[in-house]
Amino acid sequence: METFSSRLLQAAVEEFSRLPGIGRKTALRLVLHLLRQDEESVARFSEAMIRLRQEVVYCRQCHNISDQDLCEICRSPHRDQSLVCVVEDLRDVIAIENTGQFRGLYHVLGGIISPMDGIGPGDLNIESLVNRLEEKKDSIKEIILALSTTMEGDTTNFYIFRKIKPFNVQVSVIARGIAIGDELEYADEVTLGRSIVNRTLYENIK
Amino acid sequence: METFSSRLLQAAVEEFSRLPGIGRKTALRLVLHLLRQDEESVARFSEAMIRLRQEVVYCRQCHNISDQDLCEICRSPHRDQSLVCVVEDLRDVIAIENTGQFRGLYHVLGGIISPMDGIGPGDLNIESLVNRLEEKKDSIKEIILALSTTMEGDTTNFYIFRKIKPFNVQVSVIARGIAIGDELEYADEVTLGRSIVNRTLYENIK
Repeated sequence: METFSSRLLQAAVEEFSRLPGIGRKTALRLVLHLLRQDEESVARFSEAMIRLRQEVVYCRQCHNISDQDLCEICRSPHRDQSLVCVVEDLRDVIAIENTGQFRGLYHVLGGIISPMDGIGPGDLNIESLVNRLEEKKDSIKEIILALSTTMEGDTTNFYIFRKIKPFNVQVSVIARGIAIGDELEYADEVTLGRSIVNRTLYENIK
Repeated sequence: METFSSRLLQAAVEEFSRLPGIGRKTALRLVLHLLRQDEESVARFSEAMIRLRQEVVYCRQCHNISDQDLCEICRSPHRDQSLVCVVEDLRDVIAIENTGQFRGLYHVLGGIISPMDGIGPGDLNIESLVNRLEEKKDSIKEIILALSTTMEGDTTNFYIFRKIKPFNVQVSVIARGIAIGDELEYADEVTLGRSIVNRTLYENIK
């Protein structure tokens, strides 16, 4: 336990240390940085966190973070309403948006089925995906499952697939294979094996 | 530039990204963590920063961070008033306190002479060290220079040494040598060379 000569400093360092991946040394470095800023900067920093936590809302349709009842993406007339991409959390929405390759809508699960962490299907926005399909069965044509390519992701994919099979909707998963720019010799065997089995016709490459 | 679906989220991520060593991905991860906490936790986090910035004071004698006019260390009757350890910043005070090996007082320079960064002697608490020596010339017996063993540290040591030479006070620098637990073959040549030249008599090892 470090010895701080100021209780205020100690409190600030302890608060920062609670953040994931921030150890006490980093916390101290960040706090000392804030200490060197003017009062308004520190107030702006702190208020941004309080406002975010108090005023944030989640889109009632896709559960993405939003400033309104329906998020920007769900409201947009330029998005393809027939495509719904299912993702784990909002970081995935941001990552996919940044690719500029997807013009459909999202459905944010808020996690992934993980018995080890005590997360079951009931903790995720899966029921609301089923309801959304029921309501919009005429407009939604394809559900894209864009979850992690891990065991938990596969389990969640399978669970959702069974739940939405009764609806007349196409279900796809994101392509798995060798990352673009990767050298084959460094690819893991499972990915390499699968990339051969699930090979794409050359003329179909986009 | 990322696309966020919430201005509040964007503002919070931008504030975090201003901290040193925090990129936008890490900022987003930290903000999402705060978002999952209850409102009181986020308020406590934010208020700790605001209070620290608004209420912090620095010890008028040693310039260490403090909750009072004179810091805990300077106030303590259990500290050796005859020893003053000169350090760059308060992280060094914490590091030395954590060793439990030093019972004297400190003098926090608030930086190190670094012409590259535009930091000269006038930007540091060197004049106040001289004044402190003048005031307490009867009680202070030794000044320990505990700065980084870099060129900037050496420059600062030399500058301070010249400034305090007129006072009848012993000036020492922290020992330089092979770190304890290090294997010789991995030590750099300069350190190894110096550690041979500045060797210690076996009977004097503590």
